Amino acid sequence: MKNMARFYFDHASTTELDPRVKKAMEPYWEKKFGNPSSIYAEGREAKAAIETARKTIADLISARPEEIIFTAGGTESDNLAILGGVRGHRMSSRTSDVPTPHVITLKIEHHAVLRPIEELEKKGLIRAAYLDVDKNGLIDLAEFRKSLTENTILVSIGYANNEIGVIQPIAEISKIIRKFKKEIIFHTDACQAASYLEMNVQKLGVDLMAVNGSKIYGPKGIGFLYARNGIKLEPILYGGGQEKGIRSGTENVPAIVGLAEAFRLVQEQRKKESARLIKIRDFIISELQKKIPEVVLNGHPTKRLPNNVSLSVLNAEGESMVLYLDAKGIAASTGSACTSESLEPSHVIMALGLAFEYAHGSLRFTLGRKNTKKDAEYLIKTLPPIVEKLRQMSPAKFSRKK
Amino acid sequence: MKNMARFYFDHASTTELDPRVKKAMEPYWEKKFGNPSSIYAEGREAKAAIETARKTIADLISARPEEIIFTAGGTESDNLAILGGVRGHRMSSRTSDVPTPHVITLKIEHHAVLRPIEELEKKGLIRAAYLDVDKNGLIDLAEFRKSLTENTILVSIGYANNEIGVIQPIAEISKIIRKFKKEIIFHTDACQAASYLEMNVQKLGVDLMAVNGSKIYGPKGIGFLYARNGIKLEPILYGGGQEKGIRSGTENVPAIVGLAEAFRLVQEQRKKESARLIKIRDFIISELQKKIPEVVLNGHPTKRLPNNVSLSVLNAEGESMVLYLDAKGIAASTGSACTSESLEPSHVIMALGLAFEYAHGSLRFTLGRKNTKKDAEYLIKTLPPIVEKLRQMSPAKFSRKK
Repeated sequence: MKNMARFYFDHASTTELDPRVKKAMEPYWEKKFGNPSSIYAEGREAKAAIETARKTIADLISARPEEIIFTAGGTESDNLAILGGVRGHRMSSRTSDVPTPHVITLKIEHHAVLRPIEELEKKGLIRAAYLDVDKNGLIDLAEFRKSLTENTILVSIGYANNEIGVIQPIAEISKIIRKFKKEIIFHTDACQAASYLEMNVQKLGVDLMAVNGSKIYGPKGIGFLYARNGIKLEPILYGGGQEKGIRSGTENVPAIVGLAEAFRLVQEQRKKESARLIKIRDFIISELQKKIPEVVLNGHPTKRLPNNVSLSVLNAEGESMVLYLDAKGIAASTGSACTSESLEPSHVIMALGLAFEYAHGSLRFTLGRKNTKKDAEYLIKTLPPIVEKLRQMSPAKFSRKK
Repeated sequence: MKNMARFYFDHASTTELDPRVKKAMEPYWEKKFGNPSSIYAEGREAKAAIETARKTIADLISARPEEIIFTAGGTESDNLAILGGVRGHRMSSRTSDVPTPHVITLKIEHHAVLRPIEELEKKGLIRAAYLDVDKNGLIDLAEFRKSLTENTILVSIGYANNEIGVIQPIAEISKIIRKFKKEIIFHTDACQAASYLEMNVQKLGVDLMAVNGSKIYGPKGIGFLYARNGIKLEPILYGGGQEKGIRSGTENVPAIVGLAEAFRLVQEQRKKESARLIKIRDFIISELQKKIPEVVLNGHPTKRLPNNVSLSVLNAEGESMVLYLDAKGIAASTGSACTSESLEPSHVIMALGLAFEYAHGSLRFTLGRKNTKKDAEYLIKTLPPIVEKLRQMSPAKFSRKK
């Protein structure tokens, strides 16, 4: 990494800390370091800081402060929503003859959503439906409607997918749910959406919504779960009873302050920044499709995050492309960085109904604040010769259906 | 808090961030911000940073790097040990005729230990024994020996108590357990011990050990669980499969780096700092006992943390004392700061076999790095008139048994 310019195109994996966020956190490291549970001045000061942060976030999503639960990140928020929501439901309905609760999700969800659902299913605590998406990665609303049952207690559908950037129609999904049965808990993982999309929980019609700091230029290791008043969640962590007993553990004051500031900044800038990134995104997509044969765009061309370019490059292996790009100063990912150590093909690309070869050659560029059109030009110049080289090394075996 | 010197005596509640730790974290906010799961340069750099931190911690406790699991703090580490240990055991013994597993702990444990045990008990997943301590707060080893059963699968005993500072004989407890049955999992919450005591897990003979950043001048929202190779833990959080599948969630790189540095620094300085603090601690105890009638020391006089002064001031109400001290610039706590919003009397003081009035008047001063003898003198001068005033306001009803 020495003396070479770096072009970071992996903002869906994680973002750098915004210097303004860092500045907001600054007083809480050494000076205002009190424990919010303490009743003396240092404690009250810390308590006030987290309550201000809570109000900032609540206002930005049209919620009430008491509906914001701070967690250690997106994974914990999603787990609290799903494990906590299902276990909370079970506790409140302890009669002998209860049918197994039913949970609905999409096949393309993040592992932080799928894995807890799979765990509950494995233990026989729920039945789960993993719905297909269409070839553009979108939910099929008619199929979704049909999947709802009298025993459905929770629906978890991500707002925007981390890998292909596809934006689901959350408000429409909510209307379908409410029309069917009011009491179904509707959760959305909004970690990828938080920087670019409308986050008003009333307009979205969600009961639970997960957001984290590490994808919005905030600190890592912090997140929140919006939980509509009245939703009963069983805790994942038990202890001192912080966050009204829902999430025990000494509050991470600097990170909470940083999360609120980061969320405020991304929401403030989201429209302008989205417009800027859409231009760069579409420039990259069209230029790469011109310059490289046999490239397909994964996910809907317009119903996608402003910063997401997800491609499948046939007959070129994803990890090899990432490493060759890395050598040229470009950071990109194949599949999800969260599981890039795994050898399984991306479950998201596979869910698009494409052949294995598409997952094999998947490549994701996710833009961020510092990326310019110049960066995009460098990428457009750099990738095609890499693909050509790799294809020469392992001659084409698979061709796109025209 | 303006223009008034503050005397912070609540280091068991939380500590300020060490500037050296802050400096160690610094590069990981904006520059080296990659996701450790990514395979390009920024990711590898982040991965290397957490693996270095893991090795630093492992070396300091005579463990192997793969035995260190990073979590979001002490509460999560304790919960992972207990919930994960018990659920892991259940999974590995799925025959039809298994007796209910048995767990042993002490009545004086932190809520991050007691609450998960109570939860498992409530769900009928375990039977639990909450052992009494003697009047000094120490475990009764003979009683402990007798409490072990053929079905005991886990013992959780804190190394040093957060409220009264009493140090339990962990190595002796381990020997008793091993002699009875090798397979019993032995967990210790070492969050309060980490700054002052020997942390060699081989000498201690523990299988699981929880430590966090917020009590050792490290960052908040980070901790680790030592888990001896071979101990099967079921995760609390499911998702991307980080930390070898035991703890999913994007790694909090800056905090992990900070945790290792903080732990290194406290362990490096622990003997010298302990000697310094013991003098101040004992000075405070003896002077306050001289100057205030009807004061008792809670917990063993010498088998206690170098920084812990826990008193019960009869006929003076703890919270009032804390607020009056606060007005004079002194930060202290009554009961545990983690639950100071609760109205219950401290379960720790009650477990010493004392009357309710002792919990009612409990007061904890926990010293730290910046506290000097001068600070102690200010405290010794400030507390007695506060106690006198409070006693005048509510005349004595209760007297110490001589």
